[in-house]
Amino acid sequence: MPELRKDPVTDRWVIVSTDRARRPGDFVRNPVPAAPSGRLCPFCPGQETRTPPEVLAYRNGSQQNQPGWSLRVVPNKFPVLGIEGDLDREGEGLFDKMQGIGAHEVVIETPDHLLSMTDLSERAIEQVIWSFRDRVLDLKNDGRLRYVLLFKNHGEAAGATLEHTHSQLIALPVVPKRVQEEMEVAGRYFDFKERCVFCDLVRQEMKDGARIVIETDLFVVLEPYAPRFPFETWIVPRRHHSHFETIDGQQAQNLAWVLKSTLRKIEKVLERPPYSLLVHTAPLQESPKPFYHWHMEIIPKLTRVAGFEWGTGFYINPTPPEESAKFLREAGLG
Amino acid sequence: MPELRKDPVTDRWVIVSTDRARRPGDFVRNPVPAAPSGRLCPFCPGQETRTPPEVLAYRNGSQQNQPGWSLRVVPNKFPVLGIEGDLDREGEGLFDKMQGIGAHEVVIETPDHLLSMTDLSERAIEQVIWSFRDRVLDLKNDGRLRYVLLFKNHGEAAGATLEHTHSQLIALPVVPKRVQEEMEVAGRYFDFKERCVFCDLVRQEMKDGARIVIETDLFVVLEPYAPRFPFETWIVPRRHHSHFETIDGQQAQNLAWVLKSTLRKIEKVLERPPYSLLVHTAPLQESPKPFYHWHMEIIPKLTRVAGFEWGTGFYINPTPPEESAKFLREAGLG
Repeated sequence: MPELRKDPVTDRWVIVSTDRARRPGDFVRNPVPAAPSGRLCPFCPGQETRTPPEVLAYRNGSQQNQPGWSLRVVPNKFPVLGIEGDLDREGEGLFDKMQGIGAHEVVIETPDHLLSMTDLSERAIEQVIWSFRDRVLDLKNDGRLRYVLLFKNHGEAAGATLEHTHSQLIALPVVPKRVQEEMEVAGRYFDFKERCVFCDLVRQEMKDGARIVIETDLFVVLEPYAPRFPFETWIVPRRHHSHFETIDGQQAQNLAWVLKSTLRKIEKVLERPPYSLLVHTAPLQESPKPFYHWHMEIIPKLTRVAGFEWGTGFYINPTPPEESAKFLREAGLG
Repeated sequence: MPELRKDPVTDRWVIVSTDRARRPGDFVRNPVPAAPSGRLCPFCPGQETRTPPEVLAYRNGSQQNQPGWSLRVVPNKFPVLGIEGDLDREGEGLFDKMQGIGAHEVVIETPDHLLSMTDLSERAIEQVIWSFRDRVLDLKNDGRLRYVLLFKNHGEAAGATLEHTHSQLIALPVVPKRVQEEMEVAGRYFDFKERCVFCDLVRQEMKDGARIVIETDLFVVLEPYAPRFPFETWIVPRRHHSHFETIDGQQAQNLAWVLKSTLRKIEKVLERPPYSLLVHTAPLQESPKPFYHWHMEIIPKLTRVAGFEWGTGFYINPTPPEESAKFLREAGLG
């Protein structure tokens, strides 16, 4: 008998099939090539003039917009939002609109075109984490911006258009729907219990163990109880902080290891699937929240999501999280 | 400059690109074959024993589960929910779950394997609409069920696994997230204005005209102001009713014409794209609502939706609805 499960963070019910559970080999494979083509690309060293001028780079004495960097952040050449202008909020009868003000940036994670994120050293992944924090802290100074989405699409099927490994950020003058939902439900939970739902979740999952993938002193990697997608995976810090940008040195170093291990497990079990990686954090301009808790979500692209799911917000997941957690735990590399 | 627009029915902000708007020819084509293979399938006449026994059929005197039908509704052979048993709601610490009780049925829209929905006569499409109503009225008698999702996935890329034209219904013991959101936001609007937001929307859109595709005495077809996807199209009845199953003979007849015309326009402009069609209606066991208004949503599958959109609930739409409405209006066939 399938089970209906409710996610405590979004109040969303999901059907989890338990009868004919789909195992890793049952999904249509769409593997991301292990060795990129190596073609010279605008993200490669020596091609710096082919991107807009950098807004951040980690380099060893070399000049801006020249080779010699280990990580580089540049505005997206085809941004979905523009940074110049006023919001000009206005109504049109029933409707509300504003100018598409915001930032859209690309984090070029390494100069080496041939590496994917899981090939990077832990030190290099830690740099990516620092670049996320540095950009968020900078964008926070712009009072028009209310949210920064940090994300990575890996593989063409997950929406990556350039193969040179990179992450992205989109800074928005609004809070995205899914984050707002989490804030609302977590806020109601806090009103009721005076505890953070994510802190409770981490405690319960660690006691139970069935959905745990990796556990360190600072982070827990788990398959959520009511996942929308097979092998949906969350990385949750054990210490309560609502804002990602409060991350400290010890956490960043540990997160680099945890993230690399998690992605390597996913790549091993699912044979290099396309995936998206997202950071959920509290809105940029708000004070620390006792009820919200930043975390990362990894969504491998394994199933076709049709208009049905978009149109209803209703998900049917063929793989119970207890099974995906077991596959990932047993994959080693942890 | 791109625009940020808020959908008045879900309070969701969407980025609508206006600079480099994508036109019909700019999307990757994934056309649904115009002529199906014709291979004998379990939905064809003579194959009735290959499906579970029918729960409804429109036939001319012939026997149950025998040929001679013009439309047939059967339980899905691989249902995502089971109809037998108790809900057994229970908690597991933080978590909530219940048995996967519900119905999953298939509406075989015509005996003719070679026809797609737009090839059907208006009379045959009207039959599909009646079958939707008849099944909803029957399932309403089961007090465990709180919602019936009526939908159609057309084309493999939209999730259809059998080519013989069919729709589906899933009856659930919970209300899906997206419908709950619409109910909440529309409810708040009603508290504030004492008017239905959909009725206001229809009035405003008809006055404006820019996003209208088809207008009859009983229905309006429009591109919503803040669509998540290019060529997202809604069919809204002009008369206020919260529940789809209140549809009357005049409306069903007109809807058959409107639906066929709309789908033919979409097929012409976008070259037979895969699409999903959904009915949004008020929860099954609830009384008529002055603030909610049933409608249909059509979502052509034109773009790749990555984990990013799922993970954030944030959508970037490259085609302004004013442009898609114009393409559809000018396609004729209305």
